[in-house]
Formats: sequence, structure tokens, C-alpha cells
Amino acid sequence: MLGANNGGTHLSGPVLIVGTGLLGASIGLGLKARGVDVVLTDISPSTQAVAEDIGAGRALNPVEAIDPELVVIAAPPDVAADLSAKALTEYPGAVVVDIASVKASVLDHLITVVDDAALSRYVGTHPMAGREKSGPVAASAELFTSMPWVVCATDHSTAVAIRTAEALAIDLGAVVARMSAEEHDQSVALISHLPQVLSSLVASRLQDSPPHALALAGNGLRDVTRIAASDPRLWVQILSANADRLVQILYGVREDLNRLIGTLENPTGAGSRLDMAQLISEGNVGQARIPGKHGTPPEAFARMTVLVDDVPGQIARLLTEIGDAGINLEDLRLEHSPGRQVGMAEISVVPGKRHDLLEFLTANGWKVVQ
Amino acid sequence: MLGANNGGTHLSGPVLIVGTGLLGASIGLGLKARGVDVVLTDISPSTQAVAEDIGAGRALNPVEAIDPELVVIAAPPDVAADLSAKALTEYPGAVVVDIASVKASVLDHLITVVDDAALSRYVGTHPMAGREKSGPVAASAELFTSMPWVVCATDHSTAVAIRTAEALAIDLGAVVARMSAEEHDQSVALISHLPQVLSSLVASRLQDSPPHALALAGNGLRDVTRIAASDPRLWVQILSANADRLVQILYGVREDLNRLIGTLENPTGAGSRLDMAQLISEGNVGQARIPGKHGTPPEAFARMTVLVDDVPGQIARLLTEIGDAGINLEDLRLEHSPGRQVGMAEISVVPGKRHDLLEFLTANGWKVVQ
Repeated sequence: MLGANNGGTHLSGPVLIVGTGLLGASIGLGLKARGVDVVLTDISPSTQAVAEDIGAGRALNPVEAIDPELVVIAAPPDVAADLSAKALTEYPGAVVVDIASVKASVLDHLITVVDDAALSRYVGTHPMAGREKSGPVAASAELFTSMPWVVCATDHSTAVAIRTAEALAIDLGAVVARMSAEEHDQSVALISHLPQVLSSLVASRLQDSPPHALALAGNGLRDVTRIAASDPRLWVQILSANADRLVQILYGVREDLNRLIGTLENPTGAGSRLDMAQLISEGNVGQARIPGKHGTPPEAFARMTVLVDDVPGQIARLLTEIGDAGINLEDLRLEHSPGRQVGMAEISVVPGKRHDLLEFLTANGWKVVQ
Repeated sequence: MLGANNGGTHLSGPVLIVGTGLLGASIGLGLKARGVDVVLTDISPSTQAVAEDIGAGRALNPVEAIDPELVVIAAPPDVAADLSAKALTEYPGAVVVDIASVKASVLDHLITVVDDAALSRYVGTHPMAGREKSGPVAASAELFTSMPWVVCATDHSTAVAIRTAEALAIDLGAVVARMSAEEHDQSVALISHLPQVLSSLVASRLQDSPPHALALAGNGLRDVTRIAASDPRLWVQILSANADRLVQILYGVREDLNRLIGTLENPTGAGSRLDMAQLISEGNVGQARIPGKHGTPPEAFARMTVLVDDVPGQIARLLTEIGDAGINLEDLRLEHSPGRQVGMAEISVVPGKRHDLLEFLTANGWKVVQ
């Protein structure tokens, strides 16, 4: 379950990180900040050098034997299992975790190459963090702060292995979410892989669109296509590894799309309007189930949009004034318009404060759009 | 083209607004603010009363003959043509515009019920503004500020009619985009209706999803499903009216989805990985074509994410400090995490300032995530 703590265990180290890209280097930075001895190794000498330079850890010295408490395999799905197996063999006293975005395929492969004793020291995990940027240059000790970190213990896992895996997440400020590898893969197929592919499907339709159409693009299109800017190389691995779970979901999407197409081919036919209304309504229901800020019920806040001149300091001034009025800002989104020099700040406050905020802003000369 | 001005014509009024929901009432408020005499009428007495109360205009008096310069049909697609025809007949001296989100279907129907002389006084338009809220209570004089307002003149339209339609948009602070009704409908099918239905398709998959899956939801899913919260009653009208253009686009989406499903059914087959990579890459290309802030080339800014404690005033303080450092904030997005008390502010600045900003923030004790 989300937020379970493990009785206060922290990592003592040393921790060996295999793979010093964005995630591996960020883990290094986070653990170093806690005073843990971090040792780094990466197949690319330059990637490793950068990670060392930014302070993510010290280089693994081939002639020095280390006895890590934990080995973190921070490598992509394709190689995570083999690298985990290698680490389990080389460091018979260590707990080994991987952080790949798919879990069952890693576990399924690992089971075939290590024995039960080794397997008992392995725990698959997945930190739900990271951006479209990659590489150690973009790394940060805070990448995992308050983000979910899924920990997938198996029946083979020892209590020590589970506690150590959870300590990694907790020491990096993340929130532990316990579930099986299968539950994890089903979950991410739905809440991560599905939106990714549909976003790409929408965005790919824009490749040859005329400029006058794109000029009308609003925030709806921008929101739907934002994650279409993702990295193909990483996503090919994720989609391949989670193909069968994702495709089950896509069968359902295809049915719905076929039904929608049939309705649009005959929009005045009996039942067509009802079909269309049902699609949008079902979307309403599904969207409303997504947790809000800090896990609160969704849509718990009242929103308001304020015009902001596009000059330096305007937004800061708006927020400062709101704070001075004693109203807490729950959320803030900036929206752009294609004209010049004006932006829109969409502010969220607790519903009870909406009226006060509206009065206050209007009295202070701010233009409230909605 | 976007931003064309019409030689400086402004509305003198009176302007009659038929339909005083969100858009009609906002138009009333905006024109009243410019000193234009606005007369209101709505089929619902209570909706009209609210619009009058908020100052959007005065009630249409059945015993007083008015001679409006312009009649704005602010009614949904289903009734826009008939109401436009009625106004063209009742006010033989007026220009009549509608503001429905589809244009060809309105024009096609109107042509069958009025003669060429009347038709010459009609111009279909579409302000690209408005939120998921509806009704006059949410209206604002600023709803259209800097937003695109599409104006679809036809060969029948007189110069006066076109100038008057454009004056409406310009007087409300919008940016005129000139195109034909057909070009408009093709455009919105792509940049508005397509993302709407795909967002609903994704969101509807979440209806029965288990809570542990939803707990892992990140900003990708939130972004893709944000517009799934739209109003079914309005969207049924839009989709019905623009069905044939949207369905053409959906045939292409279906082809892509079928190909993706085939690939996922055989992820290790020859060419499968290439197919997946191609989908994501094509999405990259399409997404990159969406204009950025103020119509600038997309992705012209450098981004950085900063941790912000969830206490009042923190974001204001961050922005004030950035302003004090002389760095202009080009964009700002807040992101939430499921843990407690921490949010993330994603800041955009011109690329040349990214390094300065990073140094400045770090020196001032802010935690930069990426």
C-alpha cells in the first residue's frame, strides 16, 4: 500500500550503482546527501565520469573488493535481469534491486538464470519519477522526493531484502507502494503506457497538418500531446516488455474506437447521439477517479483564471498578493494565448475561499477571466 | 491569417445577443466595458436574468423596436442556423454572426432557409475560448483576450458584414483568424475534436481500475485525460455536426492503432521494434509542430524543476526571487506528488539563462530536481 513504512530502517552502505544515467546518478546524489558511501559503474566511461563529476559517487575500482549492502541496477529493461544476475553472483552478501519500468519480464528472465538462494536477495522496484530528459547531467538528489516507488517483493524475497529495498526508496524521500510484479505491470500498462501510446497516436496526426490549423491549437491539444515528446529508444523497450498487458487494454480501446467511428459514419441514426454522450460521460467518470493533489479526492478545489501581463514579476506579484490576503494557493497553471503579451494564470483554492479570492482580485485590479 | 486587422473598425452598437450562457454573457460584458449598448435575449428567463444581473446587457423589450448593428447568435450548433435565419429576417439592417464550434453545418443549413440578400449579412465565426464551466455566472469580459477568433466569410458576404464580424472579435481583444468554414471544420476536427475523443477513450478505461493502479498516476495520465472532463451535451452536438471530417481522421488513427496492436501481439517479431520506435518518433515530430508561447517556435525555452514546500507563499517567494535575479519567467507549471507537503514548480526560461538560473537557485537554497 502507498506510504507503508518499514519500521525505520535506513541504508548504511556501501551502495553500488550499476548504470549512471539520469536515475542512477540521481540515486547516487540522493544517497550521498545522506552520507552513504556510493560506488558507481557504467558501461560508458564518459557517462560514468560525468556522474562522478557531479558528485553522485566514486568509481568502482577493479582491484578493490567491495562488500555492498545494496546493488542498484539502474539500467533499461532489456538488460536489467542479466545485470541483476551478475550482481547477485558477484556480491553474495548484497541485496540487489533493479529500477526498470517493467517488472514481470525482468523477474521472469532472472528466475531462469539464478538459483533460489540468489533470488531471495533480489527485489524488483520501480521509482515513478524522471522526465523526458536523460543522462547524468540532468540528475538531482530530489528526483524521487514524494514520488511513488513501487516495491515488488516475491514469495522468495527475504525480509532483509524487502527492508533494504524499501529503505532505498524511503531514504530518497519517496513513498513506498507495495504490490506484486504482475500488479505493477498491469497498473503501469493502464496509467502510463496507455496514455503514452494514445498521446503518440494523436500527435502523429499533426505531422502534415497545415499551419492555419495548428495556429488554433489550444490547451486541450497541448495537454493530450505533451508526453508524445518521449524518447523512442526507451519506450520501445518498455512497450516490448509489457506488450501483452498493454495490448489487452488496447483491444478495449479499439472496440470503443470502432463504435465511435460507426456512430460518426451515421451521426443522425437512432442511438447515435446516445452513443456519443455515453463515451464522453464514461470519460468523465474515469477522469474523476484520478487522485488529486496529495492524494486528495479529485476536483476538491475551486478554480479561477486571472489575466497576467507578460512582463517580468507579474505572476510573482499576483501570488504575493494572494498570499498577503491570507489565501492559500493549492495549484497554479499558466496558459498561453497566441496573441501578444498576455498570459492566463489558473489558480486553485479550497472552494470556501473562492468568493473571497474573486472579490480580492477584482478589488486589486486583476482581471478575472473565469 | 492570424492577427489580420480590419483597418480599425469598431462596433458602435447596439448589439443584440441571442443566448446568454457563458459565451453570450461574456461577449455582453466585454462589449459593455467598451461602452457598447448591449441587448440580451435567452430562451431561459432565469439564464437571461442572471446575465442582466452581472451586467452583460439590458433585456430585449418586446414592445421596443431596436435596430441593431450586429446580432450575435450565441447558441449551440443545433440551433445556431435557425436562430441566425430568424435574426436575418427580423433585423434586415443587421449583420448576423454565430459563434458555434462548427461552421459548415451551420452555413449549409442556413443557405436552405434564407435568400442570398439575407445571407450576405451573415458571417459564421468561432471564438476559440471558454472552459469546462458553463452558464452566465462564470462569464467574464476577458474570456476572449488574446485568444484566436475564427471568422469564416463566404463569397456571399459583404465587406461590411466581414468588417463587423471582425470588429466584434477585435473589440473583445481576440486575434482574428480568417479561413473558410470548411478549413475551420477540418482544423478543429484535428486540433480539438480528435484530442477530445481520444482523451475520453483513455479516461473511460479508468472507470473500473483498482485504486492501487490509480495511486501511481502521474502527470502523463493527468495531462492526457484532463479534457475528458468535458460536457457530454455540448460535445454530442459538436461531434454530430463535424462527424464526417472527424471520422476521416479517425480512420487514420484506427490504422495506426491496428498496426500497434499487431506489433504488440508479436513484440519480438521482425520489424516490431522498428514499428514501435516509428510510432513514438512520429509523435515526437507532430508534437514539436505545435506553436509555443505567443506563437513562438515550440520548445524554444529551457526548463527546470524546483521543489517547493507546500506552505503559503513559497511559490510567490520563488518567483519573486527569480524576478529579483533579473531572469524572466517564460512559463510555469506546478506538479503534484502523492506524498505530503511538497510540490514541484517547472520553470521555463530562455535557454541562455538556464545556467544563471540554476546557479542562482542553488545558491539561494532551492532544491532543483532537474
